[in-house]
Amino acid sequence: MSGRFDSLFADRLGALKDEGRYRVFADIERLAGRFPKALYRGSPDAAPVEVTVWCSNDYLGQGQHPAIIAAMQASAGRCGAGAGGTRNISGNSHELVELERELAAWHGKEAALTFTSGFVANEAALSVLARQIPGCIVFSDADNHASMIAGIRNSRAEYQIFRHNDVAHLRSLLAAAPADRPKLIAFESVYSMDGDIAPIGAICDLADEFGALTYLDEVHAVGLYGPQGAGVAARDGQAHRLDIIQGTLGKAFGLIGGYIAGSALLVDFVRSFAPGFIFTTALPPVIAAGARASLALLSAADDLRTAHQAQAGKLKTMLAKAGLPVLPSASHIVPVMVGDADSCREAAGLLLQRHRIYVQPINFPTVPRGTERLRFTPSPYHNDRLLSELVTALGAVWRELYLPIAA
Amino acid sequence: MSGRFDSLFADRLGALKDEGRYRVFADIERLAGRFPKALYRGSPDAAPVEVTVWCSNDYLGQGQHPAIIAAMQASAGRCGAGAGGTRNISGNSHELVELERELAAWHGKEAALTFTSGFVANEAALSVLARQIPGCIVFSDADNHASMIAGIRNSRAEYQIFRHNDVAHLRSLLAAAPADRPKLIAFESVYSMDGDIAPIGAICDLADEFGALTYLDEVHAVGLYGPQGAGVAARDGQAHRLDIIQGTLGKAFGLIGGYIAGSALLVDFVRSFAPGFIFTTALPPVIAAGARASLALLSAADDLRTAHQAQAGKLKTMLAKAGLPVLPSASHIVPVMVGDADSCREAAGLLLQRHRIYVQPINFPTVPRGTERLRFTPSPYHNDRLLSELVTALGAVWRELYLPIAA
Repeated sequence: MSGRFDSLFADRLGALKDEGRYRVFADIERLAGRFPKALYRGSPDAAPVEVTVWCSNDYLGQGQHPAIIAAMQASAGRCGAGAGGTRNISGNSHELVELERELAAWHGKEAALTFTSGFVANEAALSVLARQIPGCIVFSDADNHASMIAGIRNSRAEYQIFRHNDVAHLRSLLAAAPADRPKLIAFESVYSMDGDIAPIGAICDLADEFGALTYLDEVHAVGLYGPQGAGVAARDGQAHRLDIIQGTLGKAFGLIGGYIAGSALLVDFVRSFAPGFIFTTALPPVIAAGARASLALLSAADDLRTAHQAQAGKLKTMLAKAGLPVLPSASHIVPVMVGDADSCREAAGLLLQRHRIYVQPINFPTVPRGTERLRFTPSPYHNDRLLSELVTALGAVWRELYLPIAA
Repeated sequence: MSGRFDSLFADRLGALKDEGRYRVFADIERLAGRFPKALYRGSPDAAPVEVTVWCSNDYLGQGQHPAIIAAMQASAGRCGAGAGGTRNISGNSHELVELERELAAWHGKEAALTFTSGFVANEAALSVLARQIPGCIVFSDADNHASMIAGIRNSRAEYQIFRHNDVAHLRSLLAAAPADRPKLIAFESVYSMDGDIAPIGAICDLADEFGALTYLDEVHAVGLYGPQGAGVAARDGQAHRLDIIQGTLGKAFGLIGGYIAGSALLVDFVRSFAPGFIFTTALPPVIAAGARASLALLSAADDLRTAHQAQAGKLKTMLAKAGLPVLPSASHIVPVMVGDADSCREAAGLLLQRHRIYVQPINFPTVPRGTERLRFTPSPYHNDRLLSELVTALGAVWRELYLPIAA
């Protein structure tokens, strides 16, 4: 089959391949009860081999929790497969209504609203707010996720980018903007590729000083930090100062979907005006039921959170001791720098083929060129033996490929 | 809790309420095995009452099919709750890989790509194609869905809107555009609010004449029309002429998710460049497993498709005979015209409260002002008794509200 513009498509894909950043998806089959082990197929017809997954965002292994699986199975048996429509046209479900009440309470907010993904939550909420508040200027952290950039860009509102986590720069931009223009500050708590954490309190201080709305993406933090796992803003005692906290059901929750939490009025506004919310099939009751079970577990999972941080801390120490260039992450995310796309892909390939360790190379545009890396996400189920195996394998790969070691 | 810009939000919501088009979501609990019956709660703490759902997009009741539910339950037990990451970073699953192969084959295309929703499929695919093909002009049907409009708008490409299903108008726009500019024609097969069907062959003729790429949204058609249910393009023998066929797993499939099918090169291009595909958690294996089971059933569901069209045809005839203003739909969608937002909402309210019939009022911006309507979607499970009950109830409501009857 050949079609129009084939040569254009082929050229663009060829350029990706030349740069070493063409994506080939690993064919993985997760195994409930054996996380972080999974089956990997090297080709559609190859026999599956068992690998250790080191790059999952199912940070606490909730995707395999028997109570969540049981809640989903029971819901499927009771309510069926899907929602059957948009939230407004027959797709609302009692499970979703209850889930939103529980998410709101968890974050100490009046209301919450679920979306089909965290990406859609960011795109829909930011685009509708920035577009519908007349004259709004968005102040966006330089490292914000693609979904926040999409929302800001699609709003067509004016925006300014402040240097990553740089409060002084943000202040200078806010001070230089007209005092009477509405302002919105969009940022994340845990940045997923470096693993560093925003100065939430200081940014809220600036928001107060300049009258700006605050929008905080906590997708890599909900379930993992703070009292009952309600996130970094909650940990820092700042949750009440955020106008919008955005989260996901796709990472620590172990499922799929996203949400925002905020005042009843603001959430109702997004609910009533965002096309990406209005004109799409609702999350199935089975997902909502799983998310409610996961939220109940996460709220009481201090033990898992402690083990999670302990394993991440151990891994960072072991990598540094082995001379491997681990970044100084402040979170559970453990990035190891490589510095170019080809080497990054080669290292990941060797880890998979020789050591049955699955980690995806992280290339541009996910990270800036020259900062290509391997990004490890140890969970509470990555035990000390698995940590040792990883560090040993990485040392072997680093030597084989003559990769730079830490200074 | 009160926040910044509250008065703006309140004013805008107040205007919606004044216009009678503020959305209040019905709290519904679907009942597997009893479709189209469901439980409705009038308030969070009210006792649920049983209603008949008349506005579901689960057109064939697949959401309650025991084989689909069993496939989901088995997958949850085997693979767990969610995907655990993006397609590229540990979230790919063997079930999704297989699903995409099967969807491609179903549509007679080389490749398919799944998205978290049909909305995201349209937004991501159209925005990346229109943005990345230099100088592209998009020709978009006036009645295209909000998700297609979002994709076209977000691409920032030039676009022109042709009158709904008007081939002569499309021809005049194509002829007036510079011959050397790349062109993309975006349209739907079944339009969900009027229930009419596009002249696919005639539009493909124009695409050939003017060298345009063709993008067809079949979300209200896949599973419902054509050999093996592969859609209206397949029914009309035109599927091979479409560059992209877009579909959903959220309507006739009974689940959630969307996809595109096309040449391997084009699909790879969208896969490699669309942020809305790349940077989002993959559909859970449990959804992919359900979709595969649903696709197998739909491929052999000629009996259900025949019953579906029979019940839709009967309902249209009965409504016309009762003097109710049913639109001349060419599909399974049965719109009954009301003409203003308040009456539409009142009629739906009476149907629910008095007759336990659940249908959602369809108001602006889903349809143009002055064409507010009730939109019924009879399934094979809406039997003759339910059809009679509906027509009787509608007659009573029409008389009570002095609504216009058919000319």
